[in-house]
Amino acid sequence: MKLTERQEKIIEIVREQGPVIGDDIASILDLSRGTIRNDLSVLTMLGYLDARPKVGYFYKGDPYRMHIRELLESIKVEDVMSVPVVLDEQSSVYDGIVTVFLENIGTIFVTNDGNLVGCVSRKDLLRSAVGKTDLEKTPLSMIMTRMPNLVTIGPDESIYAASIKIERGEVDALPVIQGEEKIRVVGRITKTNINRLVVDLGGDDEIEL
Amino acid sequence: MKLTERQEKIIEIVREQGPVIGDDIASILDLSRGTIRNDLSVLTMLGYLDARPKVGYFYKGDPYRMHIRELLESIKVEDVMSVPVVLDEQSSVYDGIVTVFLENIGTIFVTNDGNLVGCVSRKDLLRSAVGKTDLEKTPLSMIMTRMPNLVTIGPDESIYAASIKIERGEVDALPVIQGEEKIRVVGRITKTNINRLVVDLGGDDEIEL
Repeated sequence: MKLTERQEKIIEIVREQGPVIGDDIASILDLSRGTIRNDLSVLTMLGYLDARPKVGYFYKGDPYRMHIRELLESIKVEDVMSVPVVLDEQSSVYDGIVTVFLENIGTIFVTNDGNLVGCVSRKDLLRSAVGKTDLEKTPLSMIMTRMPNLVTIGPDESIYAASIKIERGEVDALPVIQGEEKIRVVGRITKTNINRLVVDLGGDDEIEL
Repeated sequence: MKLTERQEKIIEIVREQGPVIGDDIASILDLSRGTIRNDLSVLTMLGYLDARPKVGYFYKGDPYRMHIRELLESIKVEDVMSVPVVLDEQSSVYDGIVTVFLENIGTIFVTNDGNLVGCVSRKDLLRSAVGKTDLEKTPLSMIMTRMPNLVTIGPDESIYAASIKIERGEVDALPVIQGEEKIRVVGRITKTNINRLVVDLGGDDEIEL
């Protein structure tokens, strides 16, 4: 729902001066207490304001904004993640490049005996390809970013946590992992997953553009 | 705000059977009209339901979900976009690769006399680098995706439109363009911008992870 201009003004007053009683809000607006009574109960019910007896009104925040946060924190990584693409660390850089094209992905997760030991990005592969590297003889282990320098996430964490980790870690993809000593890769979360979520949250991907 | 169980039930009834009058909703719930009067006005005020005299209540939708859509549609591309990285079409593939590393980007926009004619992704560069291409002698125009096959966006379009175009076009970045005959690149929108927006929409990037 859209707030009225008067309701917006009341929020502003409570935000700046709260806790503040209804009579004071009315006098600042040059209105009677009766006139704003309904506005105050609407704003309290919507969650913008909190009323405490004998103290006055407090500002709680924008309930819609808080709702977005709650929503992002309620979606689990495991409900959104994609299938991980994994190669053994003895695979060649050439195998890595072929895999990137075949699977149409940006990041390969690298394992040793099935346990996550590193990751290789398109940039890592490009660096090798223009260097003097023998692509068929060099193993991925030579060019990968190694654990524990990877940014990872668990299947039970929220998509909001994933989004923050991608932003702060400046990475395109997070391996979704399980286990502590033996780390298994059970999924991947990429910026593509996050973008798709934005499309879905907007509620309609059938828009004509 | 959280809805009560009774309010949720009322929404369900109106959703399935609307338009439906208050008396009928009350009798389905085995309650009096007076008991649900307040629920009906709350749900109407919040925007879930619409009431039409002599017809009854209609279901309008989830106002929070609609709010997210409105929010995404109210943010303009020009308020979120990054600086574009542009090379002339006569630049070599080698120059392109160096630029990707220097600027830490994924997509280069390619121009002729300042007008957008194509784009080159990290994948295009990787393909050239492993091929028989002479990287210093091959111009970007030889390996780029050409207009009009590029997915583009205008500075006045919404970030929601950008998100949908990235998803449907299966691209990492959109050039933000102006002009029709002479197309100037004024910005770029990438999945990184979209992910950063998600972090911001959640309202807090100071969370300890």
